[in-house]
Amino acid sequence: MECGDPVEQISLKPRMSVNELMCELARAGAYNGGALARAADIYEQMLTDEKTVKFFGLAGAMVPAGMGGIVSDLLSRGYIDLLVSTGANLTHDIIEALGCRHYHGSAFCSDIDLRQEEINRIYDVFLPNEAFLTFETFMQESLCALDPGRSYPITELLTVLGQRLDRGILSIAAENGIPVYCPAVADSMIGLQCWLYSQSGKISVDAFSDMKGLIDRCFTAESAGALLVGGGVPKNFILQSMLMTPQGFTYAVQLTGDRPDLGGLSGATLEEARSWGKITEDARAVTVYGDATITLPMLVAAVLERIAQ
Amino acid sequence: MECGDPVEQISLKPRMSVNELMCELARAGAYNGGALARAADIYEQMLTDEKTVKFFGLAGAMVPAGMGGIVSDLLSRGYIDLLVSTGANLTHDIIEALGCRHYHGSAFCSDIDLRQEEINRIYDVFLPNEAFLTFETFMQESLCALDPGRSYPITELLTVLGQRLDRGILSIAAENGIPVYCPAVADSMIGLQCWLYSQSGKISVDAFSDMKGLIDRCFTAESAGALLVGGGVPKNFILQSMLMTPQGFTYAVQLTGDRPDLGGLSGATLEEARSWGKITEDARAVTVYGDATITLPMLVAAVLERIAQ
Amino acid sequence: MECGDPVEQISLKPRMSVNELMCELARAGAYNGGALARAADIYEQMLTDEKTVKFFGLAGAMVPAGMGGIVSDLLSRGYIDLLVSTGANLTHDIIEALGCRHYHGSAFCSDIDLRQEEINRIYDVFLPNEAFLTFETFMQESLCALDPGRSYPITELLTVLGQRLDRGILSIAAENGIPVYCPAVADSMIGLQCWLYSQSGKISVDAFSDMKGLIDRCFTAESAGALLVGGGVPKNFILQSMLMTPQGFTYAVQLTGDRPDLGGLSGATLEEARSWGKITEDARAVTVYGDATITLPMLVAAVLERIAQ
Amino acid sequence: MECGDPVEQISLKPRMSVNELMCELARAGAYNGGALARAADIYEQMLTDEKTVKFFGLAGAMVPAGMGGIVSDLLSRGYIDLLVSTGANLTHDIIEALGCRHYHGSAFCSDIDLRQEEINRIYDVFLPNEAFLTFETFMQESLCALDPGRSYPITELLTVLGQRLDRGILSIAAENGIPVYCPAVADSMIGLQCWLYSQSGKISVDAFSDMKGLIDRCFTAESAGALLVGGGVPKNFILQSMLMTPQGFTYAVQLTGDRPDLGGLSGATLEEARSWGKITEDARAVTVYGDATITLPMLVAAVLERIAQ
Repeated sequence: MECGDPVEQISLKPRMSVNELMCELARAGAYNGGALARAADIYEQMLTDEKTVKFFGLAGAMVPAGMGGIVSDLLSRGYIDLLVSTGANLTHDIIEALGCRHYHGSAFCSDIDLRQEEINRIYDVFLPNEAFLTFETFMQESLCALDPGRSYPITELLTVLGQRLDRGILSIAAENGIPVYCPAVADSMIGLQCWLYSQSGKISVDAFSDMKGLIDRCFTAESAGALLVGGGVPKNFILQSMLMTPQGFTYAVQLTGDRPDLGGLSGATLEEARSWGKITEDARAVTVYGDATITLPMLVAAVLERIAQ
Repeated sequence: MECGDPVEQISLKPRMSVNELMCELARAGAYNGGALARAADIYEQMLTDEKTVKFFGLAGAMVPAGMGGIVSDLLSRGYIDLLVSTGANLTHDIIEALGCRHYHGSAFCSDIDLRQEEINRIYDVFLPNEAFLTFETFMQESLCALDPGRSYPITELLTVLGQRLDRGILSIAAENGIPVYCPAVADSMIGLQCWLYSQSGKISVDAFSDMKGLIDRCFTAESAGALLVGGGVPKNFILQSMLMTPQGFTYAVQLTGDRPDLGGLSGATLEEARSWGKITEDARAVTVYGDATITLPMLVAAVLERIAQ
Repeated sequence: MECGDPVEQISLKPRMSVNELMCELARAGAYNGGALARAADIYEQMLTDEKTVKFFGLAGAMVPAGMGGIVSDLLSRGYIDLLVSTGANLTHDIIEALGCRHYHGSAFCSDIDLRQEEINRIYDVFLPNEAFLTFETFMQESLCALDPGRSYPITELLTVLGQRLDRGILSIAAENGIPVYCPAVADSMIGLQCWLYSQSGKISVDAFSDMKGLIDRCFTAESAGALLVGGGVPKNFILQSMLMTPQGFTYAVQLTGDRPDLGGLSGATLEEARSWGKITEDARAVTVYGDATITLPMLVAAVLERIAQ
Repeated sequence: MECGDPVEQISLKPRMSVNELMCELARAGAYNGGALARAADIYEQMLTDEKTVKFFGLAGAMVPAGMGGIVSDLLSRGYIDLLVSTGANLTHDIIEALGCRHYHGSAFCSDIDLRQEEINRIYDVFLPNEAFLTFETFMQESLCALDPGRSYPITELLTVLGQRLDRGILSIAAENGIPVYCPAVADSMIGLQCWLYSQSGKISVDAFSDMKGLIDRCFTAESAGALLVGGGVPKNFILQSMLMTPQGFTYAVQLTGDRPDLGGLSGATLEEARSWGKITEDARAVTVYGDATITLPMLVAAVLERIAQ
């Protein structure tokens, strides 16, 4: 048991850059501020390690909160090789790509009034219900263009949707050939639209068939790293993908608002993941507890400052 | 703005029953203790309302924590009409049904040592890795018995598994014809086993086809109620199932360890759900924040005391 | 690293007692449910160990939530030797002892409307402002009865107040000669009333003089135990009281809604307290994370069932 | 119920300044990221409003985490008129001012080993016990220099300590005549040292006498604002100081890791404070939930960038 570097009292300077602030957090080094600084070091190393396959897990209502722009940017820059998302984030990405908007609202308001004005609430974000009409038109037209005689893997369904859009996460992923996994796609408005389509048309989407490509990729990867925003299905799906291979993740950063003592995977430490072999015994890994609408922009802005040309 | 009943200072009596304690919490009426007491009132009313279709959402690592026994009991007593679960809870239910056990462990230990001893950790629960060998044998045999020419809905795959077991959640659900939904089944060891099987055999499981039965049930329900343990896919999937119908849930109880201000659905209030029409404007609904390993047993024990003959 | 007992799936029985439920939580043994069951074992042992001096720390707005009744009951039964409280809990205890009431309210309401109706809000508890007028009369009369030539220790000031009341925490403590410590008394309505009195009268209360009695008691204790409800000043003050002695607490149970990773003492684990010597290396100690309006009544009801005659 | 501005998807640029990032958070505007951006607007307005008396509340183990440097800086720049702190932060400030250091450590380690190596742990910060020997020498010498015939207000005791130091919070506050309130000073190592001194010498510190200066200041303030880091005694003491005046705080920013539903003041919303009149009905107020080791540096760096010459 040894003491490390001394804690340095933070010194702020007007007009300092985000990475300069991150370096101050590193020198202070404590609690989640220190963890965030370690996350920046790990994520920098992960992004600049060319042998590493880069996973990104996207859970929580991040697109309605404006965090989709960061995912799009990372996709464009080549810093994501495989994206695993909840269906909700992809739904809201499509909505934004179709030109509908989410709006600043309030968490302290009458939800019955909102209901009567046909505004849906996501904490303090408002989404007028009409966005879902635009979404429905897009989805029904898109599903109609599928080959009714084929069974689609979920990733391919999402690629088809992305190809019909001209901006946002699904569009950029499709354009760059980056697979988007969404194992719980039925659990989203995309799923409901598929059900709706199936009332009159024929659609077949296989729950498992895209796992083959994923696990093959894991087998052939020399090294793998993951940035996990939130927990949920994306975190578990990414981590379990390595269970079938002899190796594990060698880099892992988790930004979560959950907590470990409730036992759920979303709040579980990455240490716990070592016992399962999901990450390697000597993996560089850190969990930052807090709201990803703060920690994700700080982390990515600092790392871009370090590595972007 | 009016004051309600006065807060009564709690009076404890040796040997009081769980429901007597719950009634004390009701008279105190504050914070999550008060919310839990309101949850008991709502859940009692929901279970005794014969016109109500009863949903149960199961997220979080509840089966490894011994909470599966409560779900099994509710299924046996006819208090669950549709169960929506994470894949992990069903995996661990199968493991227990096969005679393997989870063990009391510690959250403060070396995960590297655990890895070397082939023990997987879930917070303070230990699961020896050999359980997964037993699980694998069961799964491969079960999948082998499927008709390779058919595309199975996820619920039917789970029914088949339940029929091959003689205790636990899946077994009791299968025996009683209660459908178990697991939209994110690929995101679990069940999913990995299906992938493994597909390396040599043929398996086809459709991501969407069981939504028809679910939504039909929602359309025909005179009234619907939900007990949501944790958030994640089960909560969202249950709540969204009503979006396609003109009605919403009229009873809803949520036991969650998350928090609303992070924006994610898992911690979102049920008030928010009113803005979407997922629950009705005058639905009886309450959220209890806390660890479901405490709140679920208290809630169910108190309500059973009220209604059981 | 070894596996302990197997996790038993919980079995609930209608009309089971609180302690029977607690024993089920012990057999399940996981997460905070398991921690609560261990807390019951420790607290039972602590209360029945006659050599042990019993501390009780009371933070959080517990009296307005009806939890004061439990503290009063424990004082009456002789299960608290020293009570350390926030000033707010004592203020609300006096208010209740004077016959004013707290009321069931709502956390989702207009605080501006409440302000205009002179109702103060504590999450979902309402307290009409007129209670503070009754409180002010009591306090000014009580302070007037003090000897202006003396400097009072805080504990003695609180004893004087308790002697002028006929029920509640301060009253029962005064009647039974149990000292009540409140190091941050200035940080409460009691403090504001003392300031108000000092505008015209003379009052002298010493910040430190009652520490002598406390630390003497710690020195002479063969063994010491603490039940800590919430963190804040009571937790720290109790734990630091042992720092001046060669020993530490041998029993410690903490019920807190905080979390450790933020670094604050309120959420710190009791493990951390071992590094400081606040609790002994082999102390029996456990932290239960959750809302004390649930965990405290369960804990005490179960332990009373075990030990009460 | 109206929608506000649209949520803008965040756009990060390498080498952007902290305030540029904050402006992106403002345009996104959701969850705690949005709240932090509103906090920056309020804090900027509060610091540049010359009529406003500026309070700063310091709770949580902030000095051991390197956040003391930010407080020192704000004191030096004239942005704090009254500081209210826990005793622990002041203890650790003295320790650092005496040349002792806190060190980077780990939260996952054996506290029994730490105990045997005489290292005290504060989550992942290590503090060798020898620092307290240096602290004891300083404290005993300082207390010895007090006039044994006088009763000191707590603020004056702290000024005396600050005058004997040449850096850190207490030193800068003393140098600039800024009062430091610490109502729970007995609940800290400073309190224990005072007790120790009183074993042989005479010391008299009054619990209430410095409230007069505080409340007079509140009465004469044209306007008042507060930045509250953590909850605890500092938050309550600051907010209650206005209860005796006809006005309330007109600016308030709270950075807290607690949550409102547990009922405790530390996690209570500032809306709740409106019902009490602690903040005015039209006060600009916001709570940011998260770890202050991240939110405080971001907030202050962004605001300094806006206002510093």
